[in-house]
Formats: sequence, structure tokens, C-alpha cells
Amino acid sequence: MQRIALLTSGGDSPGMNACIRAVARKAIYHGMEVIGINRGFNGFIEGDMGPMNLSSVADIIHRGGTILHTARSEQFLTPEGRARAYENVKRFGVQGLVVIGGDGSFRGASVFSREFGLPVIGVPGTIDNDIPGTEQTIGFDTAINTVLEAIDKIRDTATSHERTFIIEVMGRRNGSIALASGLAGGAESILIPEQPFDYEDICQRLLRGFRRGKAHSIIVVAEGASGGMEVGQRIKERTGFDTKVTILGHLQRGGSPSAADRLLASRLGAKSVELLMAGETRKMAGVKAGQVVGVDIDEALNESRPVDLSLYDLAGVLSI
Amino acid sequence: MQRIALLTSGGDSPGMNACIRAVARKAIYHGMEVIGINRGFNGFIEGDMGPMNLSSVADIIHRGGTILHTARSEQFLTPEGRARAYENVKRFGVQGLVVIGGDGSFRGASVFSREFGLPVIGVPGTIDNDIPGTEQTIGFDTAINTVLEAIDKIRDTATSHERTFIIEVMGRRNGSIALASGLAGGAESILIPEQPFDYEDICQRLLRGFRRGKAHSIIVVAEGASGGMEVGQRIKERTGFDTKVTILGHLQRGGSPSAADRLLASRLGAKSVELLMAGETRKMAGVKAGQVVGVDIDEALNESRPVDLSLYDLAGVLSI
Amino acid sequence: MQRIALLTSGGDSPGMNACIRAVARKAIYHGMEVIGINRGFNGFIEGDMGPMNLSSVADIIHRGGTILHTARSEQFLTPEGRARAYENVKRFGVQGLVVIGGDGSFRGASVFSREFGLPVIGVPGTIDNDIPGTEQTIGFDTAINTVLEAIDKIRDTATSHERTFIIEVMGRRNGSIALASGLAGGAESILIPEQPFDYEDICQRLLRGFRRGKAHSIIVVAEGASGGMEVGQRIKERTGFDTKVTILGHLQRGGSPSAADRLLASRLGAKSVELLMAGETRKMAGVKAGQVVGVDIDEALNESRPVDLSLYDLAGVLSI
Amino acid sequence: MQRIALLTSGGDSPGMNACIRAVARKAIYHGMEVIGINRGFNGFIEGDMGPMNLSSVADIIHRGGTILHTARSEQFLTPEGRARAYENVKRFGVQGLVVIGGDGSFRGASVFSREFGLPVIGVPGTIDNDIPGTEQTIGFDTAINTVLEAIDKIRDTATSHERTFIIEVMGRRNGSIALASGLAGGAESILIPEQPFDYEDICQRLLRGFRRGKAHSIIVVAEGASGGMEVGQRIKERTGFDTKVTILGHLQRGGSPSAADRLLASRLGAKSVELLMAGETRKMAGVKAGQVVGVDIDEALNESRPVDLSLYDLAGVLSI
Repeated sequence: MQRIALLTSGGDSPGMNACIRAVARKAIYHGMEVIGINRGFNGFIEGDMGPMNLSSVADIIHRGGTILHTARSEQFLTPEGRARAYENVKRFGVQGLVVIGGDGSFRGASVFSREFGLPVIGVPGTIDNDIPGTEQTIGFDTAINTVLEAIDKIRDTATSHERTFIIEVMGRRNGSIALASGLAGGAESILIPEQPFDYEDICQRLLRGFRRGKAHSIIVVAEGASGGMEVGQRIKERTGFDTKVTILGHLQRGGSPSAADRLLASRLGAKSVELLMAGETRKMAGVKAGQVVGVDIDEALNESRPVDLSLYDLAGVLSI
Repeated sequence: MQRIALLTSGGDSPGMNACIRAVARKAIYHGMEVIGINRGFNGFIEGDMGPMNLSSVADIIHRGGTILHTARSEQFLTPEGRARAYENVKRFGVQGLVVIGGDGSFRGASVFSREFGLPVIGVPGTIDNDIPGTEQTIGFDTAINTVLEAIDKIRDTATSHERTFIIEVMGRRNGSIALASGLAGGAESILIPEQPFDYEDICQRLLRGFRRGKAHSIIVVAEGASGGMEVGQRIKERTGFDTKVTILGHLQRGGSPSAADRLLASRLGAKSVELLMAGETRKMAGVKAGQVVGVDIDEALNESRPVDLSLYDLAGVLSI
Repeated sequence: MQRIALLTSGGDSPGMNACIRAVARKAIYHGMEVIGINRGFNGFIEGDMGPMNLSSVADIIHRGGTILHTARSEQFLTPEGRARAYENVKRFGVQGLVVIGGDGSFRGASVFSREFGLPVIGVPGTIDNDIPGTEQTIGFDTAINTVLEAIDKIRDTATSHERTFIIEVMGRRNGSIALASGLAGGAESILIPEQPFDYEDICQRLLRGFRRGKAHSIIVVAEGASGGMEVGQRIKERTGFDTKVTILGHLQRGGSPSAADRLLASRLGAKSVELLMAGETRKMAGVKAGQVVGVDIDEALNESRPVDLSLYDLAGVLSI
Repeated sequence: MQRIALLTSGGDSPGMNACIRAVARKAIYHGMEVIGINRGFNGFIEGDMGPMNLSSVADIIHRGGTILHTARSEQFLTPEGRARAYENVKRFGVQGLVVIGGDGSFRGASVFSREFGLPVIGVPGTIDNDIPGTEQTIGFDTAINTVLEAIDKIRDTATSHERTFIIEVMGRRNGSIALASGLAGGAESILIPEQPFDYEDICQRLLRGFRRGKAHSIIVVAEGASGGMEVGQRIKERTGFDTKVTILGHLQRGGSPSAADRLLASRLGAKSVELLMAGETRKMAGVKAGQVVGVDIDEALNESRPVDLSLYDLAGVLSI
């Protein structure tokens, strides 16, 4: 393999730049040439791509976002779009492709690989930690630390009785961020899409806590479970407590990546190049049983990755 | 003066603990005894107060919130409430009082001082920086740094075109936080209650920016100017841009106080004790022309403190 | 089991408080009583211990250090010291003991358990990540993030040519912190006790980098490999470059624990109680293949845990 | 005035980029052209300079360091060097110059302005806060917050008795950083070059503190007062206490600028352009009595700016 290309796709996540750096430097170290594709599959289709060298990826390991930019591509879902992308494969002499992104991105890449025979390796980059086949995704650790900082700051504020703080975090179909940050932050309640909840229970819990003298009460809500504003309204109606709502929104995607995310990104990026060098295709560089391995990309596509409900139970035990 | 009391009142702000420490240690250094009153004027009325020593204020300089807790007191607005508080003045032998809080707290303290002749000194502690008679209030610097971190993180995220981020910050009647953090964060637009704004202008500005290739656009909104959600909705309707809203809420009150807030809190706290020792009453320890001075508390009560609109104009110039 | 005791021992690490909280609440949840022992085995010997309740561990999950304090105990190494500790086991009715600390602490606890038959469970808490039998220890993730912040800040500064920055980090016999933070920080060289190094090589690497136009060069040194000052001096002598040294010291033990450390601490703390409830003794709650499990404490004592040299090689590849 | 140039000079400081942005955008707003000079006066002499536009300064307000790089220039101290720089003034059509840096940089710029009649305005950028004629310099606020974070982290760690932590901070001739961060951090002792100190006093203070039950003791030392290592050694010899030393070094120059530094940089940068537009020369944009004003640059050169010793006394009072 003489020349590989790489792109970032889907929602951006902290650590994508560290991964780009690892893919590029690992490939260059082994004598390959590297083509960076801008704006995900859109740039692939339009030929918005060019050579990267060692300096292209200098001083990016600590930056949030992605220097290659990212986008969601409607066009790549069509045979015509993918055919145009293949024109660029030929034009730029690309012999292998690394796709850093989520399962939607892998799906398109897998179809493309089957259609045109180009070796493709996926690297899981998403703050949601919801990709089957890997225990960790790039960006999750940073995101939960970002939420945690918010929880810790809210914890400081006026410890007046009968006040409840609600923090809405990301997670449309998946409560991973809410669960991990709520457990790490010592939240009194955690609402996730995977578990039914009942306002009566939540309010009883709040009232018990305040009777015991708890200085404050924090509820973390995944956006897929309920809107933070609605939770605040409902609790206020039932308890009369003053409720204050924080909606973190996109700041959860930002920030300098954590050490764990940079290490993961570096290791998975290097692994993706090794997989290409070993002649593999339609694999994902992932983590299983704590080890960096190559897994069939179909595993990431066909299975679902349930949230770890033992953490949910543990949070219930520890917030008594 | 042999024995002074102190309390924190109103909304809490980062640096109140550093101020409590300064008041207590300065007084003890000069041989006085110090009584800490819990939960603001409510604790004063109920006699929820007791002696503090050097160790009471150890290891608190860096903590958000207030170890004395704070509350808003309806009762202290009544002559009966104040009379009960005066019973505690006699019971605990209090000869002077330091009140750390906002103008509402100073108003009550000033009335109390006139009624019962107790010397009272105010120290301005509020994140809103809206107290007349002082150029800085304890907590403002920390709060704008907190907002700035959020802006910086949002700046990192997906630099997809035609996306606009809205950040709602505190400030019901006052745009200080929005203005300072928006200018420091390089926001494209800043909406404050003190200045009329027009969605047509804002949208034109956004469109101009995107045509010029701006990767993102950030709008900071003081809650008193508009709700963040509404701003997002309006812009979306007019431009078709995807708008993402962050509502920071009470996390702006939290966090470890910044260096500037701890220095300010330490200096104003010490000054309040000096004012009491000098026989002053109904003064506020404040900052004028960069110097720590005592100002008539009536100045903090009777005047209004307009936001610095030169910063608003500067933000307009620098975000072209 | 009706009553358990817990202590922290050895060097403190961020997340110990989160672990104390988990042990206490998990035990209380299951109807047990909890005795907190102050100052490690010294407090155990002297009977400096007492009951903990739900409130004892409120609002500590985010704090660095340990509310139970920690110490290294010479006395517990002697049969007399351990006999005195056993008197307190009887006096306080302790039926099981959780020891949060490093392998030195586990060794004493294991001997004590054999001598007096008290069930003992260890929880690995040390920033060095050097305990055999577990893939992670409480505090390591926070420590490497702390070092990383320092590296990132140094990276910002004057990008004048021919300047080299050296950062000395903790690790007397073990290069884990240097390796993880150096790789995550994109350091040009990493010096660890486990790998020989040669100043000639390091200097050649620096010179190559500067010839290629590198704006700065960062070297991370584990204290066990060399003193930072000496590395600076040697490089200056050979290259003539200006070298600037940072010695991080004990600040690496501090700071609010990261999300990963709080999650790990919560899970291992709860596991330690489950192990006691299941009648186990001389086990350590640890992580194997990414799972929380109980492992024989002898495994943590008799084996050695080599640093992951694949990370060292990867750092070499990615810093070309 | 149609075309101005700007450069950064001397040691870099956080906020220089925010200032570059402000100078460039303010000038462009008023219809001027802007030339950025790389690597301080060296780039000026060598003609390493070129036009800047609105996009040149996009997304830099939050970054540490300086995109124009900085250097100390021996050559500019010579008439020949300055003559070469003047050739570039003519070649690039420069009609005014903004110099962001310290007093050394202002001195050269002032001589140059007298020799060749080019209007020159200085902007004080240095972490040391030691420039006469201005109450604040760009970078100081960020630097003391950086030191404060280190102090706060050290405060967390093992609260074993009889242990003393020493933190060496920047300040060769000036104790500003040590004084402000030590006061804000609640340090037990602060050693600065401006005040004599005595190891006997320091040790007596430590011993008193430990007898009173202080959990730890922190000493902040400006590098100009003594080396941290030496302080540690001396205290250990006299008290037998374990002393642990942290040397922060250049990380004090890095980091994203604080809100206060970005605001200051924005205001001073804009003011420098206004001064040029008003036909001024050899002025510095500075802060006096809390207001942004133009001051004679000679004031910054001929006077000395003593450290505020009232802060030193206050630190002594508050750390009893």
C-alpha cells in the first residue's frame, strides 16, 4: 500500500485531530503517502482533498474539532455520489481509506468498499459511546468530563433548601453521557431513554433528600429522555421547589481532548493503518476486553450497543 | 470595637468564602472576636450564629459558594423581623456588622443600622457587577471566565457552514456578563437588555459572515434581553440556519473563584474591618478609580450603574 | 457481615474520596454499619476511628485528597503494631476491612488478615498505575490529565527556535505517568526508568526537528529516569539550545478527580463491599480485560506490572 | 493614516493574540491596511512581514502565544539594524507602528521613532505586570490564575503533618506574580525580591502553624528571591520537615488567556489604533485609575514600578 486517504465524518468529537495525526504519521513512518479529505464524504465526492505531510498534523493533538472538517452527506447515500467519489479514488491514486466517525459513516463506507473494492477501515469517533463492537469511542471521555465540570460548578451554588437543579445533556437514543456523568457527579437522579421513569418517584426521592437535610439536588437528563425545561416544570408543579435548568448543548462536543481520548485516538489511528497494511478491509479499529483490536465493521453496523445498566443501578445505590 | 458579626446574603457568588476569610482573619488579627451568621438575615433573625476562629476559615479561600450559606429574607423587610435580629445583636454582644451581598441586602442593612444604631459595612458580592459605587463586585470575574470557557468549547465544534450557536447567560436587568464574555469570546452578536436589537440586523450580519466564509457564528444573549430558545427559533425562521442553544443557568454562580475575585474579596473584606475600626457606618468597601475605598452605602442604593456601552461598541467593531 | 471499617493508606490519589463514598454508601445500602479509620494504619493502631453515615460522605465525590487522611505507617510493619490494631478490631466490632491504597498497604493488610483472620479487601488507589493484577488504579487518569494541561500550556509559549522544554513528572520506579502524558501530549522524547536512553540520540532528534522547522520541542522525564534539571543541563551542553525546566512535583497528586477516576473509584469501592459480603478475603477489587473483578491480593503483591512498552514505541512513531 | 504595521516583541504573554486581533480589526474597520511583522524586531529588520485581513485574525482571540511569533533582537539595538528596519518601513509604506511587548521593546521602538519620525504606539504585554505607567499588563491575570491552579492542586494533597510545599514562580526582579498568586492562594509565606526574608522567621511561622494543627503549609517563591530547591533544602535543615518543591517554569506563559486579559488586550489594542489615528506617537496604551488612556512612553521607560507592598502586608495578616 503506497497511498491512503482519510476523512472525518458525522458529528465531530474531541480527539478526532489526535486520530488524524496518528493515521498520518503512522502511514508516513511506514513510507506511505497520505491524502486528507475535507468535509467528510462531501469532500470525497467533490475532490476536495490533498496531500498531508508531517507538518500538516503538527500542533493539533490538543485541539478540539477536526482540521479536516466534517459533514453529513446525503449524496454519498446515492450510487451516483459514490461513483463520483470513486473517480477521486482513481484520480488521487488512493489504495485504502480510513473513516473516522460514527456508525452512519461506517455504513456508507462499507457499501462503498463492497461496490468498488477499496479497502476501508473505520475508527469510532463520537461522543455518544454508542458504537457496537468497541468498548470506547473517541470523544466520550472528554464529553463526560465536560458535563462533570458543569455538575461540579452547580454543586457549589447557593445551598438553599428546596432548590433542584436540572442539567440536560446530549443523547437522543442513548443515555451513556447522562449515566456516566451523573454517576461521576453524584447526581440524585439520572433520566435516560433506556429506562422508564416516573415523576412521582423522582419527587419522592427529592423530598426524602431534603427532609434528611440535603443541601441541593441535581438531576441529569439525557435529551432523549425528556427536555430539561419540561423536567423542571413537572417537578416544580409537584413539589413547589424552585427548579433551575441548564442545557449544555453543543459545548459537550468541544474542548481540548482528555488524556484518555488522545491515547485512544492515537492507538486506534495507528491500528487502522496497521490493518490496511495487513490487507484488511471493512474492519473497525476498536477496543475489546481492554485491548486494541480489529473487528468486523458489520459488527458495528448490525448489532446494537446497550448502555451499561449496572451503572444505572450503582448510581441508584450511591445516591441514597 | 471588640466583637463583629458577618453574613452573606442574596444570590451567592464565587469569592464570598475568600471574603469571609478576610473579614474573620483581619478582625482576629486586630484582637477582635468574630461571629458568623448562617443563612443571611434569616439566621440573624433566628439567632443561627456563633463564634468563628482562625480554623473556621481555613481551606475555604478556593471554594465556590459560601460556608455561611445565603438566603433571601422576607422577614428582614419587616420591622418585626429586624427587631428580632436586634435581640441577637444584644444577646451576642455584636458591635459591628459586615454584610456581603448585593444592593438588596445593603438596603435592609442600611435601614437596620439607622433603626438600631449598629455600625454596618457592606461588601459587594454578586456575579452581575451591577452595584453603583464600585467598579467591581466579587464573583463577576469568575462568572465571565465560566461563560468564556463555554464559548471557547462551542467554538471548537463542527465548523459546518450555516450553523449558529446561541448562548443564554445570566443578567435579568443587566447585560454586564453577556457584554464582557461576548467581547472576550469574540461573539458575533451580543444581546443585552440595555440595547434594543433587531432580528433583521442580526440575521443580515450572520449571512454576511457566512458569505465571507466564517466557520461559525456565536450569539451571546443576556436572559433579560430574550430567552435563548426564542432567539434560536427566530433566527432559524429567517435564515434557515440550524441553530443550537446552550443555557448556562446556575453554573455561572459556581466554580472556584478566579485570582482576581480572591484578591478583590481579600482586599474588600479587610477594608470592611478597617472601616468598622475607624468608626464608620453605612459604608460599602468598594473600588473607585482602581483603588479600594469606603463609599457611602446610599450611593450604592440610590444611583443606578449603567453597563459600559463603550464595550458594546467595541464588540461591534471587533466582530466585523 | 454487620460492620466494616475502611481506611486510606500510602500516597494519596485523586478519587480516594469517591471511593470512600462508594464503600460507605454501598455498605449502608445493604444495612451494614461503617467505621472510618483516620490516617491509615496509624489511626487503626491508635483507635482514631469512628462511625460514618450517609452525610459523612456527602459532597466529597469531587474533592481531591482523602477525608480520612493517609499516612505511611512504620508501626504496622511490626507484630506489636498489628496486635494493637487488632485490639481496635475487637473494640469497634469490625468484621471486615477495606484498604484503599498501593501495594505496600496491601502487603501489611494481607499479613494482618492472615494473623488475625479478619477479612480484608484492597482497592488500588495510586497515581502511578503500577499495581499488578489491575489494569487501572484510582488517580492515574487524573494525574495524566494534570500533566497534560502543563504540556499544553508550555506548547503555547514562545515558539522561538532552538528552545527545548523539559517537564519532570512523578514515577520513581515506573514510567507510566511520563509515558501516557508524553504520548497524549505529543512530546518529542519521553524518558522513563524502564528504557535506557542516550543524550546523543535525544540531541540528534532535537536537531533534526529544528532543522525541519519545529517550533518547539518538549521532553517529558520520569523522576526515576533522571532529574529534569540534569536533562536540561546536558542538552544545553551538547546543543547550545536554551533549555527550560518545569518540575511538577506534588501538584500531580491533587485536583478534582476526572470522570474516569470517579467512575472507577465508585465501581471498585462498591465491588470491595460485595466481595466482603460474599465472604471473600485477601482480594483486591481490580480491572481485568475491562471488567471489574476480584483478584487475589497476592497477585498484586508477588508479580510486577511492567509498563506498556507498546506505548513507548508508538510515541516514537508519532513524534517523528 | 492609511497603513499601519504591528509586531509582538520580548517574552510572549497570553492575550497577545487577542491584542493583534483588536489592532487589526480596529484598523480595518476604519479603512486602514494592516501589515503583520513576524518575529518581532528581527522580522522588521529582515522584512518578514505582510498584509493581514479580517480572516488573518479569526479564531485567535482564545489562543495563547502569538501568531506573529516573538523574539528578542540584538540587532535592533544597533543603528544598522534600525536603518534596515526603516528600509522596510519605506518598502511596505508603513505610516505607523504598534509594538506589543515589554519595556525593553518600547525602548527600542522609542529610539526608532525619534530617529526616523515614524509614529509608534506601545501596548504593554508581559506576564510580569512590571511596566510603569499602566496598572495592568496583558498576560498577568492569566499567569496568576495558572499559578493559582497549581497552588489549589497542591493544597489537595496528603494533609500529612510536617510537610511543606514550595512553589517557585516567575519574577526575576519583580515579585508581582508571587505576591498576587500567593495572596489569592492563601500561601503561608511569600518570598519576593523586593522584601528581605529570613529563614528563621519562615521556619518559626511553619512550626507555629503545625502546632496549631495546620494540615499543610505552602510557600510561594519568586525566582528572583531564591531558587525553590534552595528554599526547600534550607527549611528541611532547620525544621526536619519533609519539603516538596514544584517549579512551574514556562507553563506560566501559556494557556488560553483569561477573560480579563482578553478584555484588556481588546481595549488596549483598539486604543493604540485610536492614538495613531489622533496623530500621537511615543505613547503607550495603558490603564490609569481604571481607565484606558494614552501615556507617554517615556513614563514607561524612565520610571520604575514598585510592587504593591500593601498586598504583602495583607498576605501577612490573612495567613496568620
